[in-house]
Amino acid sequence: MDREKVRKVLRDLKAGRLNVGKAMEKMRGLPFEDLGFAKIDTHRSLRKGFPEVVYCPGKTDDQIVRIVEKLAATSNVVIATRATAKTYRAVRGALDGKPVSYDPTAKMITVGMPPKKSQGLVLIVTAGTSDLPVAEEAARTAEAMGARVERLTDVGVAGVHRILEHRQKLEHARAIVVVAGMEGALPSVVSGLVDRPVIAVPTSVGYGASFDGLPALLAMLNACSPGVAVVNIDNGFGAGYLAARINAA
Amino acid sequence: MDREKVRKVLRDLKAGRLNVGKAMEKMRGLPFEDLGFAKIDTHRSLRKGFPEVVYCPGKTDDQIVRIVEKLAATSNVVIATRATAKTYRAVRGALDGKPVSYDPTAKMITVGMPPKKSQGLVLIVTAGTSDLPVAEEAARTAEAMGARVERLTDVGVAGVHRILEHRQKLEHARAIVVVAGMEGALPSVVSGLVDRPVIAVPTSVGYGASFDGLPALLAMLNACSPGVAVVNIDNGFGAGYLAARINAA
Amino acid sequence: MDREKVRKVLRDLKAGRLNVGKAMEKMRGLPFEDLGFAKIDTHRSLRKGFPEVVYCPGKTDDQIVRIVEKLAATSNVVIATRATAKTYRAVRGALDGKPVSYDPTAKMITVGMPPKKSQGLVLIVTAGTSDLPVAEEAARTAEAMGARVERLTDVGVAGVHRILEHRQKLEHARAIVVVAGMEGALPSVVSGLVDRPVIAVPTSVGYGASFDGLPALLAMLNACSPGVAVVNIDNGFGAGYLAARINAA
Amino acid sequence: MDREKVRKVLRDLKAGRLNVGKAMEKMRGLPFEDLGFAKIDTHRSLRKGFPEVVYCPGKTDDQIVRIVEKLAATSNVVIATRATAKTYRAVRGALDGKPVSYDPTAKMITVGMPPKKSQGLVLIVTAGTSDLPVAEEAARTAEAMGARVERLTDVGVAGVHRILEHRQKLEHARAIVVVAGMEGALPSVVSGLVDRPVIAVPTSVGYGASFDGLPALLAMLNACSPGVAVVNIDNGFGAGYLAARINAA
Amino acid sequence: MDREKVRKVLRDLKAGRLNVGKAMEKMRGLPFEDLGFAKIDTHRSLRKGFPEVVYCPGKTDDQIVRIVEKLAATSNVVIATRATAKTYRAVRGALDGKPVSYDPTAKMITVGMPPKKSQGLVLIVTAGTSDLPVAEEAARTAEAMGARVERLTDVGVAGVHRILEHRQKLEHARAIVVVAGMEGALPSVVSGLVDRPVIAVPTSVGYGASFDGLPALLAMLNACSPGVAVVNIDNGFGAGYLAARINAA
Amino acid sequence: MDREKVRKVLRDLKAGRLNVGKAMEKMRGLPFEDLGFAKIDTHRSLRKGFPEVVYCPGKTDDQIVRIVEKLAATSNVVIATRATAKTYRAVRGALDGKPVSYDPTAKMITVGMPPKKSQGLVLIVTAGTSDLPVAEEAARTAEAMGARVERLTDVGVAGVHRILEHRQKLEHARAIVVVAGMEGALPSVVSGLVDRPVIAVPTSVGYGASFDGLPALLAMLNACSPGVAVVNIDNGFGAGYLAARINAA
Amino acid sequence: MDREKVRKVLRDLKAGRLNVGKAMEKMRGLPFEDLGFAKIDTHRSLRKGFPEVVYCPGKTDDQIVRIVEKLAATSNVVIATRATAKTYRAVRGALDGKPVSYDPTAKMITVGMPPKKSQGLVLIVTAGTSDLPVAEEAARTAEAMGARVERLTDVGVAGVHRILEHRQKLEHARAIVVVAGMEGALPSVVSGLVDRPVIAVPTSVGYGASFDGLPALLAMLNACSPGVAVVNIDNGFGAGYLAARINAA
Amino acid sequence: MDREKVRKVLRDLKAGRLNVGKAMEKMRGLPFEDLGFAKIDTHRSLRKGFPEVVYCPGKTDDQIVRIVEKLAATSNVVIATRATAKTYRAVRGALDGKPVSYDPTAKMITVGMPPKKSQGLVLIVTAGTSDLPVAEEAARTAEAMGARVERLTDVGVAGVHRILEHRQKLEHARAIVVVAGMEGALPSVVSGLVDRPVIAVPTSVGYGASFDGLPALLAMLNACSPGVAVVNIDNGFGAGYLAARINAA
Repeated sequence: MDREKVRKVLRDLKAGRLNVGKAMEKMRGLPFEDLGFAKIDTHRSLRKGFPEVVYCPGKTDDQIVRIVEKLAATSNVVIATRATAKTYRAVRGALDGKPVSYDPTAKMITVGMPPKKSQGLVLIVTAGTSDLPVAEEAARTAEAMGARVERLTDVGVAGVHRILEHRQKLEHARAIVVVAGMEGALPSVVSGLVDRPVIAVPTSVGYGASFDGLPALLAMLNACSPGVAVVNIDNGFGAGYLAARINAA
Repeated sequence: MDREKVRKVLRDLKAGRLNVGKAMEKMRGLPFEDLGFAKIDTHRSLRKGFPEVVYCPGKTDDQIVRIVEKLAATSNVVIATRATAKTYRAVRGALDGKPVSYDPTAKMITVGMPPKKSQGLVLIVTAGTSDLPVAEEAARTAEAMGARVERLTDVGVAGVHRILEHRQKLEHARAIVVVAGMEGALPSVVSGLVDRPVIAVPTSVGYGASFDGLPALLAMLNACSPGVAVVNIDNGFGAGYLAARINAA
Repeated sequence: MDREKVRKVLRDLKAGRLNVGKAMEKMRGLPFEDLGFAKIDTHRSLRKGFPEVVYCPGKTDDQIVRIVEKLAATSNVVIATRATAKTYRAVRGALDGKPVSYDPTAKMITVGMPPKKSQGLVLIVTAGTSDLPVAEEAARTAEAMGARVERLTDVGVAGVHRILEHRQKLEHARAIVVVAGMEGALPSVVSGLVDRPVIAVPTSVGYGASFDGLPALLAMLNACSPGVAVVNIDNGFGAGYLAARINAA
Repeated sequence: MDREKVRKVLRDLKAGRLNVGKAMEKMRGLPFEDLGFAKIDTHRSLRKGFPEVVYCPGKTDDQIVRIVEKLAATSNVVIATRATAKTYRAVRGALDGKPVSYDPTAKMITVGMPPKKSQGLVLIVTAGTSDLPVAEEAARTAEAMGARVERLTDVGVAGVHRILEHRQKLEHARAIVVVAGMEGALPSVVSGLVDRPVIAVPTSVGYGASFDGLPALLAMLNACSPGVAVVNIDNGFGAGYLAARINAA
Repeated sequence: MDREKVRKVLRDLKAGRLNVGKAMEKMRGLPFEDLGFAKIDTHRSLRKGFPEVVYCPGKTDDQIVRIVEKLAATSNVVIATRATAKTYRAVRGALDGKPVSYDPTAKMITVGMPPKKSQGLVLIVTAGTSDLPVAEEAARTAEAMGARVERLTDVGVAGVHRILEHRQKLEHARAIVVVAGMEGALPSVVSGLVDRPVIAVPTSVGYGASFDGLPALLAMLNACSPGVAVVNIDNGFGAGYLAARINAA
Repeated sequence: MDREKVRKVLRDLKAGRLNVGKAMEKMRGLPFEDLGFAKIDTHRSLRKGFPEVVYCPGKTDDQIVRIVEKLAATSNVVIATRATAKTYRAVRGALDGKPVSYDPTAKMITVGMPPKKSQGLVLIVTAGTSDLPVAEEAARTAEAMGARVERLTDVGVAGVHRILEHRQKLEHARAIVVVAGMEGALPSVVSGLVDRPVIAVPTSVGYGASFDGLPALLAMLNACSPGVAVVNIDNGFGAGYLAARINAA
Repeated sequence: MDREKVRKVLRDLKAGRLNVGKAMEKMRGLPFEDLGFAKIDTHRSLRKGFPEVVYCPGKTDDQIVRIVEKLAATSNVVIATRATAKTYRAVRGALDGKPVSYDPTAKMITVGMPPKKSQGLVLIVTAGTSDLPVAEEAARTAEAMGARVERLTDVGVAGVHRILEHRQKLEHARAIVVVAGMEGALPSVVSGLVDRPVIAVPTSVGYGASFDGLPALLAMLNACSPGVAVVNIDNGFGAGYLAARINAA
Repeated sequence: MDREKVRKVLRDLKAGRLNVGKAMEKMRGLPFEDLGFAKIDTHRSLRKGFPEVVYCPGKTDDQIVRIVEKLAATSNVVIATRATAKTYRAVRGALDGKPVSYDPTAKMITVGMPPKKSQGLVLIVTAGTSDLPVAEEAARTAEAMGARVERLTDVGVAGVHRILEHRQKLEHARAIVVVAGMEGALPSVVSGLVDRPVIAVPTSVGYGASFDGLPALLAMLNACSPGVAVVNIDNGFGAGYLAARINAA
């Protein structure tokens, strides 16, 4: 598209519909990225099926509705994270023509239809039930980006046989997201079992010297099994996003 | 193999060569992994082309030589990280039949022949020249695991046009490792430019309130562009390993 | 004024209206700063156009009204930061003769007329929309101190082309305030583009391992481009104040 | 003994060998612990087989020799921790009549004969080979206090089947010491497998964001399996001491 | 039971009721833990008198009621920690046939009948009255696991004679839990008085530079008397659990 | 220049010397910075009088010599920071035609002739004598960039009259760099006295809970007088650089 | 008294009213502190004029009333810190015979009559108006303990002349309490001016990287003027208590 | 003196030897401290018996010798802290006329004769033998300032009866310095026993999670007994200085 804009200027100049000064002016008048950032533009239109994600905290329902409307006008699917049910109702009310759904665990609003499922599998593994909201945010994000997603829940290291039972499922994934709070040991165990890329998500589950997820974060960064990388505490969205990227790569 | 052991017990029982008590005993007597961990075993033999990596600090040259010899007996390629030139000479002296090389920047010893290069590309992007040892550790590790690797060095954000010039190369990679110290901003910029998985490696380059890499680590965990995951400070090996996993997935 | 007080004592002594003992007593009785801190006094009267700023949190509306009244009696412009709309209405009600305005984003009350705009330009650059309240606090503070201010918003490093489009504006500023949360990378990029003094303001925008702004703070202190100095997290006021000082220097 | 001193005063008073004033004076003159701390004294004499432990860093060989000599005069066994081989030679040279041994891994000197082995078993479980010095300090300390000790080494969570193979041994211990660095996940796994008391020892093994053992320490404090308590980083001595106490209880 | 399942397959094979292929299939079809984790299973059934503990924060009353019902169906005693009085009423209403009690200090619900009291004694020592909720959580947990429990309260080091008066009680315990906030010095003093295992529980009692219990946590980890191990801040449950384990060992 | 290149393509197209496809290709073929980064280029040549600074730690003398030679070929002045005397001798030996000097306090090498002194004054204020190396690094950097520099040393807050005596000098500066370790209070006092921009440099001078400069860093970020911004601990170079930028603005 | 108890046993023994065994028993039977802690007892009765202080947070009004009643029965003055006005009304209602007062700034309840004023002076110096609650807690505590107290408020280092005006008052104090938040620089300045003991109280006043008072705490611990010691953040009570101790010493 | 200068100007004006303008000029021309800082001057001459203390680290022997010579010329006693034996020999060689002594434990050089001993007693209490260097620095500093000093060593809380034996000595002190590392509990115990001012000195003695003295520092700041204030880690000098100030007050 952007290249087309450039091409049109050039053609108009060639055809005498523009003189050099006028063409020059148009070239300058074009948004910077039209020339210099064609790649980025391409990249952005490639991403059109998955535009900027709306992070809801700190925005009013009204602001969120307007942003979602704008994004939904040009995108097949839009997601808004950490949304309340009240915000969901506001969005649903405003976008009546489009399918709008809400997952109360993930606290995520999805507008529109995700792309067709990928071949590869993204597996979301969760240590404890308290980690589920973060895990669901990861799962719903990956799904919105077109990934086929399966879940494996409550398989933390306090009963290590639980994850061992599911070795085969681990091996079938193209990317594994492992969500764990407290001591954050599950990614080390999972990565020790299979050769799949593991994205570790520390959660703020815990109390006392858990300092809102620091032990899990540090443990995952210091995982003794190679093949693990870490996203921010409670960042289910980021993990699901990266898993879908790996899955689609 | 392991399944065969089980099958044999069952056959012997069926054939009357064992009674139930004896069979029961044999079942119990089998090493745990013989039944339960066949997958893990398979997994381990799958990994044979890339066995355990030798982390040299805290080991004597003699210990390292013996470990490398043992691993090299069953593996096509063995790597030893954070090795001195002196350790390299000791290893080279002991393994005369095999190709042994040493990269003084990465401080890595490679024994044997890496597998044939993969189709996909792993790109190692480095912010500053001081980050090169960590970057080379990542590059050499990925190469030893069979990845095709390219490098992009000294493209830090103090001169942001440098990375912009190489957008195309970024887009051709299946996995991008971004190595940066100080404020650790490069992964955010890279991940904002392309939709490739980005593995961020904070380095301990810096002084004063750099606390051995903490700012870069925190910055990367808080990257505003999604699609970034982080490994431990200075952990080039871990990043290269994960990039090769993603590339091979 | 203070010097006049000293001069009067000296004249009265000279004229015989005081004897030495009495003059000595008066000299001692003068507030300390009258003699010793003439400089400071001068400085304070120079600052009269911009007196002490009222930091509202922890003060009652009644207290704030009284402080603002007192300051407004001797100053052309008074600002109160982190004020609620309710406080604003209380202040506006009490100061009917004077122009009183309120900016709900900056949460700042301005009483009176700022001095004539300076020649130089203070540019306020913001990474994301969540950083706007801090940025507006900086902008309104600099304006109240007489600076000509322009804003550049939502130009964070996740889409680095956005800041690149505005290089000229960056070059025209005498001081640049860069406001960013999360990984706090924007000041490095800005300072790498132009040779203007950059004042970096980390914000507490983020979650998880963002520890209320620590990553941005540390990143800015460790910026790889020289020419950056940092103020406290969320301290838009301090940044705007310093930018206006530099601009007026 | 102490009680005997009191009893003697009382008898002398009764027998007229002391008057009340003199007896009162003697009562007061007795060292405080003679009356009030008989328990402590008993406790100290009970501990005579295991007196104060000599922590070597910061002491000269000469000082260590003199302290060990003094302790060895009244105790069957004396241990000195974190000792160099040079210190060992100095101690051995000075105490020729007594058996003196040195363990170079634990860096511990043992003088004299430990008490007869206890019935119960103390099991020392180690995640990686780099954790061995700390583990051996624990093992040697528990042995010096009379515990029967077994070791289980290199069973970290990167290959979780290794610890699973040894479930029976875990179940036979009266106290289990688990030594691990990096992400410190092993105590959670062990404590999830058996109902034995687990004493977790974080080690400073690691690099980057391992901050001398902080991740392992925090992970162990936040272990999701109950039944785990933690000692200081690298404090093998403290763990072995407590395990021997539990074993003897 | 699990072994019986295996034995049955073997017998059926022997008896011709299964052929080898079918037996093989059944062996594989058995849940993993049936073979591989018989020990764990045994352990779990041994633990049936004390199943998983319900940690209430973050769960709805309805969820808690359902979990407790399920656990109570197969266990003699069930505990739920950090429960509100409202949750207690919900649980009590749902489990009418069973004894249900609530301790408002410990905020713990106990369902069913704890096992017969053990011979050994668990002693819960508390520094100040503000530490009582954590101490009671420890006490109630140990009691629910069958331990005989005594309490010693308000014996902090600001009046060190208070703990000295109770030396005999300290000596009679098989395990001592010491609960303290602020400077967390009491475990050092207790462990210096007697040779019993000491489990230290730091509490978040304090203000200012108490950082939610960090000083007490660090102090306890650095206790100068050996024989102390530490659980997480405010983790009365974990301390009581471990004390009961030691007591029963 | 860059615009001329674009204009030329457009003219050639207009004149029929290029067709649209060819013009399109040329547009794309132009190096990115040719269009988009002309500003940056200009900026870089503007900066030619003060090129990249050589940070010596971690580089060999040989590397430093080659970098300095390369920079000195195109720049009037080159500086190398944190250089040893040995490095200085190596540089001086290699650059015989050029003036090379070394300041052992600042540990800075200066090659070539700084630009003519600016009108404005940069004042370097130092709390204690131990802060002098950092202060001199700031002073020498600002001088190399053409600033007129004065120094005010040993005027820390333990004797607050010392800084008060020099109020006039403070008022004459266009930018003030304040260097202080320990409690880092001096910038607050200086900024309270005058309305000049204050750049605060925390130093790692101190011991105990000084954590390599953290108290001074935090104190300066929390300065109660507005008008202060902070650079990294011990970053004299960065402070001098920014001061010279402000002075030249 | 306690000594009398001992003397009586000895006399009864001497007089034949007790035999040695019985006397021995009585000696043992005496409460521990009767012999060993006579000093402590004396100390406690000396402290009767100033008994345990009631720290109100976490206690119900009813509990506070009962504790205050009990303490007031045997003490001339009782104080309760961090009390609400509601608690004050409850206490006043219950203790009708006694004078009960409440200071809403200090949030302190005082019951009864403080002892006669001491000769020496305790001076409470405050940096900013936000520090007043902590300062008043210090002042009221010292007054309740009998100290003559003066206050010096709003003399922070942003206008250093303010404290200089009051040098004489500083010199007349026997102990100086300095209360400051933000950068916590005032104690250094005060201690540099006079040779009086300075007790520094960091407050949690501030925002951003003020981390609830950490900068002030660290700054005060690192004060460059000797003669300063520090209490916990916001611990006005502790500072006033210590100042009164020094004043009375 | 300073007042005399003012008085002279006034008299000269009165007598016609100066006119008002000239007098005004002289008033302004007087060095600032002549008027405003007479107090400080007096204070400095009062302090002449104890001038600035030389902190040796980071200074050459030559620099130290020159500073000590200069101070010794006008002071009766000079101390230099953290000095090596080599520095001592250099100082002793240069100051032959004066008594020079060196304490190798405290690492302190004392030049000249301390003032006559005070009536009051400063007591230095030490937890363990490793804390002795810091304790001796405190003791020697207080002695150099004229305090009568006694020492109580190795009375840490691992054997709490040791401090209890010395209650009387504690009660006789006017100020008590308590030096302790590891968990830093001793100041709480001491302050709970007597009503003397307690200055707590945390030491960096310890390992693992002792972070160079942080646990002791935090414990002392959170001491549950009021009457404790804290100096920096290992700051024996500061504690001795403050104790001497209190003793002399």
